[in-house]
Amino acid sequence: ELRARVIEHFARDDRLVGHRVLITAGPTREPLDPVRFITNRSTGQQGFAIAEACLAAGAQVTLVAGPVNLPTPPGAARIDVETAAQMHAAVMQQAPAHDLFIATAAVADYRAAEPAERKLKKSAETLSIELVRNPDILASVAALSERRPFCVGFAAETHDVIAYARDKLQRKRLDLICANEVGGGKGFEADDNALHVLWDAGGVELPRQGKRELANALLDVIIERYHASHGA
Amino acid sequence: ELRARVIEHFARDDRLVGHRVLITAGPTREPLDPVRFITNRSTGQQGFAIAEACLAAGAQVTLVAGPVNLPTPPGAARIDVETAAQMHAAVMQQAPAHDLFIATAAVADYRAAEPAERKLKKSAETLSIELVRNPDILASVAALSERRPFCVGFAAETHDVIAYARDKLQRKRLDLICANEVGGGKGFEADDNALHVLWDAGGVELPRQGKRELANALLDVIIERYHASHGA
Repeated sequence: ELRARVIEHFARDDRLVGHRVLITAGPTREPLDPVRFITNRSTGQQGFAIAEACLAAGAQVTLVAGPVNLPTPPGAARIDVETAAQMHAAVMQQAPAHDLFIATAAVADYRAAEPAERKLKKSAETLSIELVRNPDILASVAALSERRPFCVGFAAETHDVIAYARDKLQRKRLDLICANEVGGGKGFEADDNALHVLWDAGGVELPRQGKRELANALLDVIIERYHASHGA
Repeated sequence: ELRARVIEHFARDDRLVGHRVLITAGPTREPLDPVRFITNRSTGQQGFAIAEACLAAGAQVTLVAGPVNLPTPPGAARIDVETAAQMHAAVMQQAPAHDLFIATAAVADYRAAEPAERKLKKSAETLSIELVRNPDILASVAALSERRPFCVGFAAETHDVIAYARDKLQRKRLDLICANEVGGGKGFEADDNALHVLWDAGGVELPRQGKRELANALLDVIIERYHASHGA
């Protein structure tokens, strides 16, 4: 089968051979009207780099991507989505068939309560937009009672990064969380990145480095914790 | 001088030799917090194609661009901006030194009244964002009492395109307006486009074609109306 041969060709090692990894990456777009939308500065680079690292370790990779300008890593199955609702649907359909879920996407927390069908006219001096919460994709997967994958989340924060991340780890019942300082040129639009990786009983700091090198270092931690949780 | 030689090299004709053209292109981004922002589907393609057409006609071109993934047309002076306020400042500084102003940018009509300094937390089930009007760049240039360039606007609409465009032409005292139907795959994200070009005493329809061909057809109309308005 083609995909098996592609994976074999690109794999540098066999640590994830036979394991299926679902990865989300990029931003989402939440329409306000047919032309305007709310989004964020995520470029998808970190998620795509992690997908490449997983492929290099022999994994079968499914990549659910928001709107990004990045080529599909060779060997990955890619599903393109635009909104958080579309990403939620794709992930909930795919998750039970995967062993690991790595949620790098910067999913919009809110969407417009009522997106306008026609382009909004700028008649008023001020305007108020009503937003409602989007479904929490990561928490939904982590709450699966059957065929729940090992769940790795990201916490992108501008302040109190580690405290928020540890709270998110416990509240959403994740296996691992990667705390990521963003804003002011850090994280989303930078070429390098630094992470604190936390789990229930510990944590490790991955210092600032290129997103590709960081993806490899992160994957080492993920694989170690994943195998530990499965008693391997 | 280098720019003169570059222009000479790329010019196909001399219709705009010695004329200075200021062009805005792309979307703007209006921050809600350090990572989130409101933007729109404009890719900047149409504006960059018009810049290339102006350069080919021998013009000196200044291109004020929002965040787009496009290379600078050879010979153009490019100023990159992110927000509508930044674009307004750049244009008002440049406009008096230019003979034509072609406003293709999809400038955000509104910005957040108070962008958050920290990333917003998703504590509430619903959220209301207060927006305030941005300055109207095109109307500001068209209202210049001295050194006012010939003003070409765009009206991107999902409905009643021509009626809105004619109203905008008169209300903002433009010399020419290009009405552009957008949404549902038309306009912003499509590779081709169609325009209705309107002026006080008339109008012409430019049928659906590639954005580069359309830019050339549009420039023919602009140059004709520009020279007519100057009695040339």
